[in-house]
Amino acid sequence: MSLEAAKGEQSVGTRPQRAPSDRIEEFATAALVAAGTDPEAARSVAAALTETSLRGVDSHGIRLLVHYAKVVQTGRINPKPRLTFVRTERGTGIVDADNGFGHHASFFAIDHAVALAQESGIAAVSVINSSHFGSAGCYVLQAAEQGYLALGVCNSDSFVLPHDGVKPFHGTNPLAFAAPVSGARPFLMDMATSVIPWNRVQDLMNEGFPLPADVAVDSDGAPTHVPARSAALLPLGGINYGYKGAALASMVEVLSAVMTGMPHCSRLLGMAGPDFVTPRRLGHFFIVIDPGRFVSPEVYSLAMGAYLGDLRTQPGRKNMKVMAPGDREWAVEEDRQLHGIPVADQLKLDLDELADSLGTGRLEYL
Amino acid sequence: MSLEAAKGEQSVGTRPQRAPSDRIEEFATAALVAAGTDPEAARSVAAALTETSLRGVDSHGIRLLVHYAKVVQTGRINPKPRLTFVRTERGTGIVDADNGFGHHASFFAIDHAVALAQESGIAAVSVINSSHFGSAGCYVLQAAEQGYLALGVCNSDSFVLPHDGVKPFHGTNPLAFAAPVSGARPFLMDMATSVIPWNRVQDLMNEGFPLPADVAVDSDGAPTHVPARSAALLPLGGINYGYKGAALASMVEVLSAVMTGMPHCSRLLGMAGPDFVTPRRLGHFFIVIDPGRFVSPEVYSLAMGAYLGDLRTQPGRKNMKVMAPGDREWAVEEDRQLHGIPVADQLKLDLDELADSLGTGRLEYL
Repeated sequence: MSLEAAKGEQSVGTRPQRAPSDRIEEFATAALVAAGTDPEAARSVAAALTETSLRGVDSHGIRLLVHYAKVVQTGRINPKPRLTFVRTERGTGIVDADNGFGHHASFFAIDHAVALAQESGIAAVSVINSSHFGSAGCYVLQAAEQGYLALGVCNSDSFVLPHDGVKPFHGTNPLAFAAPVSGARPFLMDMATSVIPWNRVQDLMNEGFPLPADVAVDSDGAPTHVPARSAALLPLGGINYGYKGAALASMVEVLSAVMTGMPHCSRLLGMAGPDFVTPRRLGHFFIVIDPGRFVSPEVYSLAMGAYLGDLRTQPGRKNMKVMAPGDREWAVEEDRQLHGIPVADQLKLDLDELADSLGTGRLEYL
Repeated sequence: MSLEAAKGEQSVGTRPQRAPSDRIEEFATAALVAAGTDPEAARSVAAALTETSLRGVDSHGIRLLVHYAKVVQTGRINPKPRLTFVRTERGTGIVDADNGFGHHASFFAIDHAVALAQESGIAAVSVINSSHFGSAGCYVLQAAEQGYLALGVCNSDSFVLPHDGVKPFHGTNPLAFAAPVSGARPFLMDMATSVIPWNRVQDLMNEGFPLPADVAVDSDGAPTHVPARSAALLPLGGINYGYKGAALASMVEVLSAVMTGMPHCSRLLGMAGPDFVTPRRLGHFFIVIDPGRFVSPEVYSLAMGAYLGDLRTQPGRKNMKVMAPGDREWAVEEDRQLHGIPVADQLKLDLDELADSLGTGRLEYL
C-alpha cells in the first residue's frame, strides 16, 4: 500500500541532500512569517508541510512552501485570518477560514470536531472561505492520534476527466480516512480520486519517461503516453472503470462544495493562477467518530489487530509484501526521522532563492 | 456513470420476459413468508430486492430471492428476529439484527440514524449480528429521500486481492453514498471497491466472452482473461493502482468489522456456503447528515443544481453523454416502471421452481 507516498520527486537528481525535519519546520515557519503570515497560522502550515514530507508524500510537502509564500504575498491568502467556529447543532459546526491558509483552518476544524464527537459520539465540521490545505491526511491523523476515526475531503480545480468525458472537470479531489491503532501509528488512507496525481505526470516529464497506460489523456481526450501532451488525468478506474473514481470525486464535490456553498471544481480559480490575488474560497468537510460509542476499547483493539495482522500476512506477489494503509508512510517517516528529509536539487535552489528574497537564513542540510 | 447498474444479466438469453415491479414485490414477500420469514422482515427484503432490480442492479436484485429463501430455511437467517436499537450517545447507536435479514435491520438502522441526525445534525448507527443486506444503495437512498445525506458500507467474504497480493482477502466491500437533489431523484453512488463485481465474471463465463484486462487473476495470482480460471478480482485501480481500491476496501473493513466487533472479510463464513446453518454475523455501518446544519435549503439546492448541471453538460467521448452518479439508475428505473423488470430465462426457471417448492403461485409475466 503506498497511495501517493514514495511516488514523489525523490528520483529527480541524484542523492538529494537531506535536512532534519525540525530544521525544515523552523525554516518554513520563518519564511511564512517573513512573508507576512501570522505566526500561529505559519506554524500550522509549516507543521503540515513537514509531517507530510516526513511521510514521504513529497508532492504535498515542503515543496509547496514556495507556492504558499508567494500566494500570501500576492494577496490570495489572508495572512492574518480571524478563524471562527459556529456550532450549528450538537454534532455539527462551521469554521470560517477567513481566506487564510487551509491547513490552519483545518487543524482548527478537527479540534472542534473532536470536541463535538466527545459529546455526541460523532461530529461533522465544514470549513468555508478556505484555501489549499495540502495533504488531507494531516487532519484525519490529528483526530486518529487522539483516539478518533476521521474522514476528510476537499475538492480542487479541474484536472480530471469525468467518466466518458474528454475535458478536465473534477479536481484530484482527495479522500482521507484515519483510525487509531493501539500501540502503533494510525491506519491511514490518503488518496486522490484520480489514477495518479498531476505531480506524477510532471515528474515523469522531467525524468524523460513515458506515462503508464490508462492514466492520462491529451487535449482531445485521447489516451496518451506522452507526459508533455497530457491535458487531463483519468479518474481512478481508467477509461473502462473510471465511473467509480468519478463517483468518488463527485461525492467529494457534494461534501466540499455543495455542503459549504463554496464553488465546485470547474468554478474554482486555478491553484496555479493566473489570478493570484482573489481568494479561491475552497470548502473542506470533516467527520470525526468516537469508536468508544460502538465497541469497547478492548474489542476495538483486538478486532483492528486481527484485521491488520491477517492483511499483512497475506502472501505477496513476487517479492512484494502486502501492506496496510499507512504502513509505507510510517516506514518512510521512520527513515526520514533518522536520516532527514530529502530535498531534490531544483527544490533546494528554489528554497535558497526564497530565503534570500525574504531575508531569512537558508535551510541547512546534513 | 453506471457503477454496477446496467451491467447485470440482461444479456443472458434473448428478450427476457418482464414482470411489473409490484407483482415481483408481492411474489418475493409471499415466497419469503412461505419460507418461514416474519411478514415485516419479508416485506423489507422484498422491497429492497425490487427497488434494486428497478434501478437495473440485477446482480443484487430479485435474482437473490432464491438464495434468501434457501438460507432462511436452512437456519443461517433467523426468520423472526427481534431487532433492537441502543442509543449510545446523542448522535450514535447500535442495532442488533438478531441474525435476521440484513435488509430489514438496515432500513431499521437508517430510520434511527435519521431520527438522531434530526437532533444532532449528524448520526452514525452500526448494525451487528446481521447478514447480507443486498444493495447498499437502498439504505442511503432511504435517508436521501427524507432530505439527508448518507454513507453506508458493508464488508463481505474474500473475493478480492489485497494490493500486491496473490490470494483473495477483502470482499467486494461496497461503499454507497446518497444526497438529496431538489425536484429530482437523489444523487447516488453505490459501488463495489473491486474493479468489477464477481457476478460480472460469471455473466461473461455464461456468455462465452473473455474478461477485460486488469480485472481478475487465476489461482496463482496471475492476470487472466479466462472467466473460468478467475480465482479473485483485482481491487479498483487494477494491478498498478489497486492500492487505492484496496485502501477503500480496508476502510470498509474498519467501519463494518472493527467498529462492530464482527468478523472481518477473511474470517467470515462464505455467503455461498458450504455452511448454510451458522449465522454469518455481518456488520454494517451508516452515517446520516442533515444538510440544513451546514447550508440553507436554498444554497444547497442552488449549489447541487449548479454542480450537476455543469457535470452533465461536459463534452462526451464519441457519442457518450457524461452522467452524474445515479443518472443511469434512474433512467433504467423509469423504463422498468413502465415496461416491467426483465427476468432472464434461467432466473425465471429458478423462480418457478421456488414457487412450486413453497406452494406459492408462480410469478406472472407481462
